[in-house]
Amino acid sequence: MIKSVLAGALAVIVAGASFTAQAEVLSAEDQIMLRKAGYGYMSWNMGKIKAQVIDQSVAYNQQQILAAANTLDAIANSGMGALYGPGTDKQVGSQTTRVKPEMFDNFADVGKISGQLSEATNELVAAATADDQAAIRVAFGNVGQSCKACHDKYRKD
Amino acid sequence: MIKSVLAGALAVIVAGASFTAQAEVLSAEDQIMLRKAGYGYMSWNMGKIKAQVIDQSVAYNQQQILAAANTLDAIANSGMGALYGPGTDKQVGSQTTRVKPEMFDNFADVGKISGQLSEATNELVAAATADDQAAIRVAFGNVGQSCKACHDKYRKD
Repeated sequence: MIKSVLAGALAVIVAGASFTAQAEVLSAEDQIMLRKAGYGYMSWNMGKIKAQVIDQSVAYNQQQILAAANTLDAIANSGMGALYGPGTDKQVGSQTTRVKPEMFDNFADVGKISGQLSEATNELVAAATADDQAAIRVAFGNVGQSCKACHDKYRKD
Repeated sequence: MIKSVLAGALAVIVAGASFTAQAEVLSAEDQIMLRKAGYGYMSWNMGKIKAQVIDQSVAYNQQQILAAANTLDAIANSGMGALYGPGTDKQVGSQTTRVKPEMFDNFADVGKISGQLSEATNELVAAATADDQAAIRVAFGNVGQSCKACHDKYRKD
């Protein structure tokens, strides 16, 4: 009883913040918008790591690398598969997509690449936690290869 | 020497994946796009938790809640402050923004709210790890209150 009252009170409190519609009623347009948001945010965080450990155009900062690695790892494991529902293989409303329709016939392969990405981002978090720049470079390369593997097969140029 | 050769090789490998421009050259338009992407992705993950532990319209799944909590925590700690640079207080190109210009005069206050958000997302990860639904509800409410505190002050309706 107390728990359900508490749940009700919290629901009222958070009603003021506009959360995206629940998973079960996510429109095709919102799914495309959200997966693009996730990949865009990953791309920014890849760019931060690249600048510090590959290009070395920005001073190395372990805390920033770790924060970026944690973000990549969390998004990679956030269940993005739910954002590839029926009807999301082409532009919907204002949401364009570069996905190739054949991705939707190859979810097993996509799942395999996705698993490789998760392994690589996990390795990146470990390397960043250990403050090991050489290991960060290797793990960053592995993350990038997983990104590229999927883009080459399932994303239009 | 070996390290720099390796770095060069990896830079070539990952060049095929298009990462967002490095932090130091991020345009005002890209900053707005990326912060909206980050908040949008957080909103989706808040929605998933809300559906499972507040509305209870979707079956509770601890692994999904933990993945969502990790995503919220990682994005909250990803250094979004870098996405509020000069010139991002108004629409730039195709990127609209609901930010109120007064946010840019109150970064100390924003930093305080941001710190509260990080504490709350950390608490949410702990509750999800412990598989404690009552604690997840409380932490979820605290995250929502931090979101709302910033929206009420610094976001247009």
